[in-house]
Amino acid sequence: MSYLPEVQTTSIATETSSDVFVRGKSLCQDLIGKLSFTEMLFFQILGRSATAAEIAMVDACLVTLVEHGLTPSAVATRLIYSSSPDAMQGAVAAGLNGVGSLFAGTTEGCASVLADLLDAEDGLEPAAERIVAEYRAALRPIPGFGHPTHEPDVPRSIRLFEIAHEQGVAGRHVEAVHVLSAAIDRGSGKHITINATGAIAATLGDCGVPAEIMRSFALISRCAGLVGHVHEEQQKPALRAIWEAADRAVPYDGESG
Amino acid sequence: MSYLPEVQTTSIATETSSDVFVRGKSLCQDLIGKLSFTEMLFFQILGRSATAAEIAMVDACLVTLVEHGLTPSAVATRLIYSSSPDAMQGAVAAGLNGVGSLFAGTTEGCASVLADLLDAEDGLEPAAERIVAEYRAALRPIPGFGHPTHEPDVPRSIRLFEIAHEQGVAGRHVEAVHVLSAAIDRGSGKHITINATGAIAATLGDCGVPAEIMRSFALISRCAGLVGHVHEEQQKPALRAIWEAADRAVPYDGESG
Amino acid sequence: MSYLPEVQTTSIATETSSDVFVRGKSLCQDLIGKLSFTEMLFFQILGRSATAAEIAMVDACLVTLVEHGLTPSAVATRLIYSSSPDAMQGAVAAGLNGVGSLFAGTTEGCASVLADLLDAEDGLEPAAERIVAEYRAALRPIPGFGHPTHEPDVPRSIRLFEIAHEQGVAGRHVEAVHVLSAAIDRGSGKHITINATGAIAATLGDCGVPAEIMRSFALISRCAGLVGHVHEEQQKPALRAIWEAADRAVPYDGESG
Amino acid sequence: MSYLPEVQTTSIATETSSDVFVRGKSLCQDLIGKLSFTEMLFFQILGRSATAAEIAMVDACLVTLVEHGLTPSAVATRLIYSSSPDAMQGAVAAGLNGVGSLFAGTTEGCASVLADLLDAEDGLEPAAERIVAEYRAALRPIPGFGHPTHEPDVPRSIRLFEIAHEQGVAGRHVEAVHVLSAAIDRGSGKHITINATGAIAATLGDCGVPAEIMRSFALISRCAGLVGHVHEEQQKPALRAIWEAADRAVPYDGESG
Repeated sequence: MSYLPEVQTTSIATETSSDVFVRGKSLCQDLIGKLSFTEMLFFQILGRSATAAEIAMVDACLVTLVEHGLTPSAVATRLIYSSSPDAMQGAVAAGLNGVGSLFAGTTEGCASVLADLLDAEDGLEPAAERIVAEYRAALRPIPGFGHPTHEPDVPRSIRLFEIAHEQGVAGRHVEAVHVLSAAIDRGSGKHITINATGAIAATLGDCGVPAEIMRSFALISRCAGLVGHVHEEQQKPALRAIWEAADRAVPYDGESG
Repeated sequence: MSYLPEVQTTSIATETSSDVFVRGKSLCQDLIGKLSFTEMLFFQILGRSATAAEIAMVDACLVTLVEHGLTPSAVATRLIYSSSPDAMQGAVAAGLNGVGSLFAGTTEGCASVLADLLDAEDGLEPAAERIVAEYRAALRPIPGFGHPTHEPDVPRSIRLFEIAHEQGVAGRHVEAVHVLSAAIDRGSGKHITINATGAIAATLGDCGVPAEIMRSFALISRCAGLVGHVHEEQQKPALRAIWEAADRAVPYDGESG
Repeated sequence: MSYLPEVQTTSIATETSSDVFVRGKSLCQDLIGKLSFTEMLFFQILGRSATAAEIAMVDACLVTLVEHGLTPSAVATRLIYSSSPDAMQGAVAAGLNGVGSLFAGTTEGCASVLADLLDAEDGLEPAAERIVAEYRAALRPIPGFGHPTHEPDVPRSIRLFEIAHEQGVAGRHVEAVHVLSAAIDRGSGKHITINATGAIAATLGDCGVPAEIMRSFALISRCAGLVGHVHEEQQKPALRAIWEAADRAVPYDGESG
Repeated sequence: MSYLPEVQTTSIATETSSDVFVRGKSLCQDLIGKLSFTEMLFFQILGRSATAAEIAMVDACLVTLVEHGLTPSAVATRLIYSSSPDAMQGAVAAGLNGVGSLFAGTTEGCASVLADLLDAEDGLEPAAERIVAEYRAALRPIPGFGHPTHEPDVPRSIRLFEIAHEQGVAGRHVEAVHVLSAAIDRGSGKHITINATGAIAATLGDCGVPAEIMRSFALISRCAGLVGHVHEEQQKPALRAIWEAADRAVPYDGESG
């Protein structure tokens, strides 16, 4: 632990006997009733006020990620909620543990590639060619690209880029993802769509969200999505249906130890 | 498990090859770019569109709960993040496990008391007298009331009730919490403030949020708050400072086993 | 928080530059290579050395709880592991969040009933009659009793009581659970079995495990069980099979918001 | 998801109306009362019975990892338990989320290096020289080596290797870690100790535990350790002491957003 400082401060908040101060602002005077939740979470995470255009973009990205049906995270949350109904926080926590490398990780991965592109000294296009060649040589897919069913382009990505342009948010990251996309198409000889995780990485990047905290927007959004599943599990419990279905889908094969 | 149905449906979402449908609406056509995140989470959880006044109220409650400084949940998230920096989802999940009975539980508890009051056949005031007498006899505090330092009233509660009246949201739950407050003051012979959890229970109650899912608004809000702590931990790591402080604050007493 | 002390000590452990001391014993000299894991966890949790008979009993209870196939917790762990394969700790944490009131809670609930019985001033039999009458009046099942398929008695319970008698561990708690069982049979006019959670509550109770920490033995045991599912998920991934089965078992009903 | 099979089986367990079968063995007939918990967890995870020597070794490793005092995981568990005392499973889950790359990850990392060494076609010593050179060129520490205070060698590692030799468990992995250690000492010109994570990686490796599940033994062991902290938190609550210490150790610096 010797590389970590022994003394540290926080810039986030302090509680006084009459108020809470968040990054220098009074919760009661400056924030409650003044900021939307999206404005507040942007301020909390990034430490600055967002523009109206940035908020429109962040809202669009958060709305995109809320819900995809009975995903692994949603199933886990519903099973854990019905097992421990006194502690819905544990059910939501269980589902959020699934917002990892397979799903949210591609957003973060794409954001890292875009950051590399934008840092490259040889310019966007040569850097894009180089990166595409490296991934092809390693037989690795570039995060943020490709979708099994949406042809030719993912509708969610189209909408997110439309909003980025309407709001005037589209900047270097959106440009970079399209330069990269063109290089990918040339490299593979066919069109490979920018998927929703790629569009989110680019549009949130142009709102100033760095790659290392990109995954957190999926966490906040899915938290709300998972709560919806908890509430439906309260009203229409699916525990037994899912449990029995899982049991039938993965039968015991009797291989002895 | 025999009391749970074997067959169940979901009304939340389905994914098609070209879109996601959430409660009958197209994610791409009807939701992305049309709804704020707060509108979307209300729709996801409660299954109906909110009015603009309800959204203003929900925003105010969510903003209120985001941040209170280095709370136990925030400390847990920071310690776990620095221990497992590859998996920020686990750090946020760890902190959310602390949004339980001690903190968020009082919101839920107050909402249950308000629901009992509003269901009482003998009218609000007699029911409030009865409930206050029951809690006093059991020496239990009524959830949603009292604060160690804020005199005479908690500023956050004042703001939330102001917004409820400005927005025209204030209804039966806000009335009930004030009837209950008056009964508490009569019973104890002094003024005991409605605290922030009581104000949130009443104002979200008037937005149609039932008691059984009330705690989830704290989960969504604190999720964003905890992400802020993860991001600060990335920039100003406090692991070592907290670890050493905890170690000194709780010394080993050498009592042998 | 004013009811909690500002100053506190720990009796568990301290680390020095050359060793770790756990409850006054040297990890290197006294514990590693001297204690089995079961002896160590008993010492860690209860703060005293266990007898050989107690260890045999605790081993039997821990072995009983490791595995029950694709339970909700195991399914949640497998789904989360395959979603976030870089962080197996999050997958195990997700599954452990399901060791709650529905499953482990009945062990804790039965232990509380046994503690009440043993504390009763009117003697075991009258107290058992009284408790059975109270639960019947409230239409509540007594935790630790009943099983949908095992007739007349649950084989796991039979084995656990056999071991308690063989090892000489059986004492007041085992006596109490049988007195309670007889009262339940008289009250209901038929034989209702002591299930595994009841047998564990009684036999661990006779090893000195108090009700308030009873649930933790299920946590430790299921932790090992869930790890087995992580390892199988690495070798025979079931994510897709479970996901698709859940999706089919809980279809979208198209009810609009 | 297209790379995952749609059809899958499990070899772990099935429940019948009268028993549970784990990897082909009857829980009631073959396992309860016959196996220690360590034997059972080895059987559950690795799918085969362990030898007595392997169990002695696994016990020693599990005992080593149970407890290190108020570690970040233990602090997180205590804070979350006192915040959500109704759900101890969430507190243990919170702490386990910290058994990640910083701590348990070095065991896994060392196990991977040992696996590479043992797979190398050029023999142990040349492969060790090559790996040491690679890590030195990359300025990366080799996982499993080095300790800030223990000189010349970590006592826990010494004990674990003693047990490996006494029990006749020491094999190719223990040999490999010592060959690697010698290469490290030559490369750095001084003695760098094999730390406890290195000793565990080698000795569990010689028990047949593969690198990809190595981290799980830390999870099981720390689960028991964290339960001890929950139980002490019930008896000697440290929430307030830790909270206030953390608050003082990381003061608000008032930097505005």
